[in-house]
Formats: sequence, structure tokens, C-alpha cells
Amino acid sequence: MFKEILQNIKIKAPLVHNITNYVTVNDCANIILACGGSPIMADDILEVEDITSICNSLVINIGTLNNKTIESMIKAGIKSNELKHPIIFDPVGAGASKLRTNTTFKLLKELNFSVIRGNISEIKTISEGSLSGKSRGVDANVHDVITDGNLNETIMFVKELSQKTNAVIAITGAIDIVSNGNKSYVIRNGHSLMSKISGTGCMLSSIIGAFCGANNDNILDATAAAVCSMGLCGELAFEKVQQNNGGTATFKMHIIDYMSKLDENIFKEGAKIEIR
Amino acid sequence: MFKEILQNIKIKAPLVHNITNYVTVNDCANIILACGGSPIMADDILEVEDITSICNSLVINIGTLNNKTIESMIKAGIKSNELKHPIIFDPVGAGASKLRTNTTFKLLKELNFSVIRGNISEIKTISEGSLSGKSRGVDANVHDVITDGNLNETIMFVKELSQKTNAVIAITGAIDIVSNGNKSYVIRNGHSLMSKISGTGCMLSSIIGAFCGANNDNILDATAAAVCSMGLCGELAFEKVQQNNGGTATFKMHIIDYMSKLDENIFKEGAKIEIR
Amino acid sequence: MFKEILQNIKIKAPLVHNITNYVTVNDCANIILACGGSPIMADDILEVEDITSICNSLVINIGTLNNKTIESMIKAGIKSNELKHPIIFDPVGAGASKLRTNTTFKLLKELNFSVIRGNISEIKTISEGSLSGKSRGVDANVHDVITDGNLNETIMFVKELSQKTNAVIAITGAIDIVSNGNKSYVIRNGHSLMSKISGTGCMLSSIIGAFCGANNDNILDATAAAVCSMGLCGELAFEKVQQNNGGTATFKMHIIDYMSKLDENIFKEGAKIEIR
Repeated sequence: MFKEILQNIKIKAPLVHNITNYVTVNDCANIILACGGSPIMADDILEVEDITSICNSLVINIGTLNNKTIESMIKAGIKSNELKHPIIFDPVGAGASKLRTNTTFKLLKELNFSVIRGNISEIKTISEGSLSGKSRGVDANVHDVITDGNLNETIMFVKELSQKTNAVIAITGAIDIVSNGNKSYVIRNGHSLMSKISGTGCMLSSIIGAFCGANNDNILDATAAAVCSMGLCGELAFEKVQQNNGGTATFKMHIIDYMSKLDENIFKEGAKIEIR
Repeated sequence: MFKEILQNIKIKAPLVHNITNYVTVNDCANIILACGGSPIMADDILEVEDITSICNSLVINIGTLNNKTIESMIKAGIKSNELKHPIIFDPVGAGASKLRTNTTFKLLKELNFSVIRGNISEIKTISEGSLSGKSRGVDANVHDVITDGNLNETIMFVKELSQKTNAVIAITGAIDIVSNGNKSYVIRNGHSLMSKISGTGCMLSSIIGAFCGANNDNILDATAAAVCSMGLCGELAFEKVQQNNGGTATFKMHIIDYMSKLDENIFKEGAKIEIR
Repeated sequence: MFKEILQNIKIKAPLVHNITNYVTVNDCANIILACGGSPIMADDILEVEDITSICNSLVINIGTLNNKTIESMIKAGIKSNELKHPIIFDPVGAGASKLRTNTTFKLLKELNFSVIRGNISEIKTISEGSLSGKSRGVDANVHDVITDGNLNETIMFVKELSQKTNAVIAITGAIDIVSNGNKSYVIRNGHSLMSKISGTGCMLSSIIGAFCGANNDNILDATAAAVCSMGLCGELAFEKVQQNNGGTATFKMHIIDYMSKLDENIFKEGAKIEIR
């Protein structure tokens, strides 16, 4: 499955419209370029329709949510839905404030998302329909971690949420789950050091935008391929950091480096993905 | 003193709420993670109280001050004061514009800061209560540099300002001074190349947020430890850059790298800190 | 010509006021420092006049244009024109939305720019006075690429636009053209990988701000020197990336690294510049 997905990105070089936060935005732009897409960031309400119209997909990320930008998100999203562009939603910190939680539900109501990606706590907030009261900000709550012990039950939860939202759901953490309600992937790539850099989640959501923008007819596999590729880059980057005695900033750089060198063979050798 | 301070960061993994600028925000997020904390950036007035309530400390940085955000800073700060969270204030460019200078005084009036960190020119602006007219933007004025020749007099100045503001004052430059009005530290770690990258000051203020968030009962020592650790990382990063024939961008990366590897031994071997 | 231009930057350490986007702003700040200038980012309408008054040049970049900031750009620009500071304009994505195109023309009407730098598609949008309808977002349209086949005609186009706008025009791409209407430079430095990282154009516009801020009496040569230096850093960075088996993120880091080590000899050995 990976071969064709990667080829489509190379051929189509999808333009990805990002309405995102100002913390990780540069890494998101660079990793979209690294994987073969082209990023454009634009959030002013006067231009989001124009911009999204020339793009192949839209990524909405509420990492530093600004009340004024919510209308831009909705306007861009409605246009994107009209044009049948995939929209990826990253509900960063949903559950950490009423603004983020309420905005998450507002966006879910107004827009049809192709993919929703978050950590387990963010996705649970979406499912439970209210503030969980256990938020660790933009991090997952430790009580929520996916393990082999609760994997089956978590897959069931994800499938149900996917059916309810009509979106592919991607929960990422130590173990990743990607599901469209019928078919689910469990992915075990990645490295724990990825939680020690800012923006691995945001970067992943952005490349899902590129992968889906070039593979609009196969959102589930495109999303799984993006999740798997991010994990693989994390693993390869960690190896290189170890060799060179580096730290977390070098690690982040190498993740983007490996994304720019990603090919089919890296998947063949390293992908730890199973269908459930 | 350093051992316990570092241990507390590891144990508590403090959540640090940052209302900061869009220039250095990514480096601030990553260096907070590197030192053992967890960052969250949020500045919308509709969520700053929620966000600060789940955090352990608040960092306010006026590096790209936006008039609309001032109310968010005050609202977050009042809540943070109520909760007895330490607030760190970085008056970036105070003295460079009336907006920054006036906002600095407005914040000083409305909020109780635990720590104020700036370069000598910014701190002098706070002390003098007006535009100095000699601003070099976000850089220190060359006439203001701390040397051994004016060290005693500068320590006196810092002590007085600390007593007046009821905050720990940290002036950083070639020589750093940290004082709570009674006890003062003089720190001689760091490297001159740190002035050739954007954000060393901002990054330091952010990790002071993490150090103080985990050591709320010992703000002076936590601040001194953060200042010292930043200087040590600068020294180690410079050595590595020299070895690899790198430049300023590599240098910045290695500073964050070393922060992610910081331990007690690095302090034991390298700290150049004295009590005055 | 390069020797004196570089010397002036070292001597004057120009302060560069940037009103720019939140995607590449950190790289812009760091590369200004790397080349010997000092950056300050400020966009609030209440402080842009104060800030630009203490600076040596102004860079206006519409990369993530916000409707509210347009007035700040104009206010800063008028003050900057009064003070005879060079203003550099980077019309990022002009042609990609009505907001960007209209703002581009509004700024051209209200302000006198010393330099306008963009890719061929952005510059053509300026020349044609309307949406071209062929925008690839922030990238150049493939049909617009400058080749040896259309070089003479493109130089003519650039000369005319320079005379019309009374600004030095810099078009950058595989071949760069810098012209003041009378004299034109063709520059063939750079590497194609530069299009795979976000912000090479923005960074170039920012260092043009530093080069011109220190060489206000020779805007054409200062701009050509900046364009050439960016290309040289790209070439050197690519060599180093190849040696170390790196990717695009390492490449970006090394571009800034080499800018921090730029000297006259690097120009002597590598500049591929001709007068036309």
C-alpha cells in the first residue's frame, strides 16, 4: 500500500493549507516540504477561501487557539468541504480549556473532517463530549496511555468514534491506532523521545494533510502511512542521535531529515503495522 | 543546592504556561521540555485563566507585544497570583517603544512577579521608570555592560530593585547577577556567541518558569540554577560547535541538546557561581 | 564591491525592523544575526513608529498576512520613508489570494520601497497588476521559471519594473536577477534543495534588510551581495549535508551556519555574478 501512496505524493506535490499554531508552525511547514508536499499558512478570514481553493487539503490545528481565528477555520473548512478536499483536524489541548473544548465541538458540528488526529486524552475529550477535568495541557494524561492490556478495548472505542464522526480517527502515542470504523491499523513505530520535543503531533497532522491531499480516494491508508512514516523517522533519528551523542534538538532535526529521505524501502524494512 | 532543584523538576515535570512572542516560541517550548518541564502556550483572553490553573508557573514575555494580549497577560497573572504560582516576567525590549515601556509598568503594577529577568538595559528601564532613550532594541546598550569594574555597584542596584519590586531580579549578560534583595549570586558561565542567536534570553526565562514551577519554595536558588544551567549549556555547545566547525544555528541546537542532558555533575564540574 | 559592503555590516551592526510572518520569523531573526545585523520584530500599530525609528531598515513580508497588520505596515513604512531608511518588500504569495494581491498594490501605492524581492510569479503579479490565476501559493509557477532561453527577455522585464516602481527588483530562483533599471546583475549561486525548505526567500529578504541598512548609499550592490551570499551559503550547506548524509533540516541549519561565517574570501572563490 505504501508504494502507491508515496508515488502519488511525489507526482502531485499537494499544496496543504494550514491554519495552525505559532509554536510549531515552522516545523510543520518544513516537514510538509520534506515529505513532498508544499505548505501554505494563512488564517485571515479575508483570504482563507481563496487559499484553500488553490490547495489540495486543509489542516486545522488549535494549538494556540485565537478566538478570532475560529471563524476563519469554519470558513476555510466549509469551502474545503464544498471542494471535497480532505480536512485534517488536530484538537491540540482539547480538554485543557473551555475555549478549546467548545471550539472542538463547534468545528465538529460545522465541518466534515476526513481525519481527526490527537493523543488519547484529546480524542477522549471528543468522545466524552465534555471537559474531562484531567487534562495535562497538550500532553496525554498518564492514566490514558494505550497499552497491550487495553488495546482491544481502545480499538473498539476508536471504531465507534470513527463511525460517529464519520472521520478516520488517529490516536498516537506509544502505540498508534488508525481506524475508519471498519478497518483499523495498529502501528508500533516511533520512539519515546518524541514526547520530549514540541510538535511531533502537529507535524504528523501536517503530513497527514500532504498524504491525504495526494491520496484523497484512500484516506485510511494515507493516514496510516503518514503515522507509520513519522514513527519510522523517529526511530531512525534516534539511532543517529545516539551515534552522535546528540540531544533533543538534534533529534528533532533528524526527524525532518529522514522525512526528506523517506522511500518505500524504509517502510519495507521498518514498518510495524498490523490490521485489526 | 543544584541537586535538589534538578530532582524536583524531574519528579514534578512542571507545566509552564507561556504568554510569549512568536519569534522564539518554538525554542522556548523545546528547551522547557529539554529541562524536564512541559510547555503550554496560550494567550487568548477566553482561555488564559483555565490554562494557567492547570499549570505550575506562568512566563510573560513581551517580545512581540500585541496590544490585545496585554489584557490576557493581566488576567492570567491575576489568576496565577491567586493560585500562588510563580510568575516570571521577561520585559523584552522595554525602553525600545512607549508601548513596551508602558506595558512593563502596567504589568508591574497589576501583578506580583516572582522573577524579573532581562538584560541590563531592560532592567535599568524598569528601575528608572521611563524611556532611557538609549535603546538598542532587544539588545543591551553597550554603555550598560556589566564588568568587574562596576560589579559591586550593579549588585547594589539589583538588590535595591529586588526590594522595590519584591521579585528576584536576574540580569543576564557577560556576567549574570541574580538577587532577592538579601542574597545575591554572581554567575560567570556562558559564552559570547550566545548573543549571536535569537532567543537565549527568552529561552532562559522559559526554563526559569520550569525551575521555579518545581521549586516554588526556593525561587532565588531555582532562578540561579536556571541561569547557571543556561550558561553551562552555552559553554558546552560552543565546544561542540568548535569541534565540528559549525556556526550559530548549530550552536543554538546544541544549547537545547545539552539542556536535555543536564545533570548534577555538569553543575559540579562547570558552575562558576559565587554568593555576594 | 563585496569587501566594503561586508565591512559596513560589521561596523554598523544594523538594526533591522521586521514586520513579517509567524512561519519563518525565527530563521529570519537568526540569519540577520548571523550576517552581522540585529533583528527586532514588532507589528503592533502602537509601537511600529517607535521601533522603526531606532532601526536602520525595515523589512515588510506578507507571508501570513493579517488584515489588522496592514495598517502597521503602512505606518511603519511612512515613518521609515521619512527617515530615509531602506524598506525591503517581500510580497509572499502575491497572486494567491485577493487579500495578498490587493495589499501588495496598496503598499506599493503608499510606500517607496528600496527593494522588492520575490519569486518570478510574485514579481509578475506586481507587474501585471492583477491576479494571474496561475498561483502555486507561495511557490513559483513552473511555467514562470527563468532559464537561459528567456533570460534576456526577463532582464528587460525586470528593468522596466524597476523603473516603474523606482525600486531595486530582485527575482530569485534557479537564476537570480537584481536590477535598478539601469544596471542588472545575473547571479547563478544557490542550490535546488533550497526550494525544499521553508523560508529561504524570507531569510534572503531579511538579510537584504541588514545589507541595505548598513549600505544605504548603494542599495543595488548591497542587494546583489545579499542574494549572492544566500546562494553561496546554500551551496556550501549542500556540500556539508552530502558529506554527513543529512536531510533538509540539517541543510537549513547549515545555511544559517555559513552565513555566520561569511567573509570576503567566500565571495572571491564562489560568486557567480555577472553584470548585464
